Amino acid sequence: MRELLCNAGVAMLTERGFSSSGIDAILKIVKVPKGSFYHYFRSKEEFGAELIDRYSMYFAHKLDRFLADPGSSPLQRVAAFCEDAEKGMRRHDFRRGCLVGNLGQEAQMLPAALSEQLRATLEDWQRRMQVCLQEAKAVGEIPASVDTQEWSQFFWVGWEGAVLRARLERRADPLRLFSRLFLASIRA
Amino acid sequence: MRELLCNAGVAMLTERGFSSSGIDAILKIVKVPKGSFYHYFRSKEEFGAELIDRYSMYFAHKLDRFLADPGSSPLQRVAAFCEDAEKGMRRHDFRRGCLVGNLGQEAQMLPAALSEQLRATLEDWQRRMQVCLQEAKAVGEIPASVDTQEWSQFFWVGWEGAVLRARLERRADPLRLFSRLFLASIRA
Repeated sequence: MRELLCNAGVAMLTERGFSSSGIDAILKIVKVPKGSFYHYFRSKEEFGAELIDRYSMYFAHKLDRFLADPGSSPLQRVAAFCEDAEKGMRRHDFRRGCLVGNLGQEAQMLPAALSEQLRATLEDWQRRMQVCLQEAKAVGEIPASVDTQEWSQFFWVGWEGAVLRARLERRADPLRLFSRLFLASIRA
Repeated sequence: MRELLCNAGVAMLTERGFSSSGIDAILKIVKVPKGSFYHYFRSKEEFGAELIDRYSMYFAHKLDRFLADPGSSPLQRVAAFCEDAEKGMRRHDFRRGCLVGNLGQEAQMLPAALSEQLRATLEDWQRRMQVCLQEAKAVGEIPASVDTQEWSQFFWVGWEGAVLRARLERRADPLRLFSRLFLASIRA
């Protein structure tokens, strides 16, 4: 039941964001009575916190799976992550974005604790990216002068923009463009 | 009266997006009765269309002012535009983002005509950026091999991500990072 609620919640947040997502609408989708919801979660905020947490962990594992793949070079791994994200967006016909990007856009309307969770998530993803860029440096795929901390933040700043744009255009081109120019730039 | 409504509408959309912005809340801020609103606009969608239009034109003029400044080099003009945008965000304590980015994030909930307007706006801003990047190429500030169309899209994809992140962190660092690495990359 908790799983059902969370899956429906994540789907709704990636599509509509937090403010426009109503608990009632989620309960209707999963056919769960309101009382059961409040058995699991004290409030919409507590529910939101768990959804961010789950999404954050899910992507942390996905990142690790791609970015630590010993079968390809570090920059190839970054490219593979981007291609997989494209597949994910295509699967939902570009209707769903990144939960963190969506909610980030609503930062001023969110409870402060949730905004803090979003910031921490992006920093966590950045650290994972940075480890991969460090490896790229170690194997000589990128120049030794690259500041991997800055470039991993650059990646996530731009990538969230690319996901936003891909949703607006309902096609993968912005994701591909960002991935290609990011990789070309960091190599130079 | 129309001006008052539009100014309050733009402010609300840059802060809350479209779905979470209520006509009632806007009317309350500007102290205008509902009947007057419907004298000017047939619907929330028609109001939204005018707000996007105004915002789009406002930024087109701002871009022209910065990107066609004969007193500085083409890339310096891009940097100056970014610095001015930072000042704008700081003035509102990073509570307001880009109206186009905000509404883009809600693409799936917007009337189709508004999504189309947002796409057209970004393409218009990109064309203006491209003219400036062409000039940068002409004066040798960037290599002749740079595809200025791709790079102007890269700019807007990443810049919207930077504005989103700056709001989430309530500080200018993501804007500065993006601007700096973008300019360093296009030079290389």
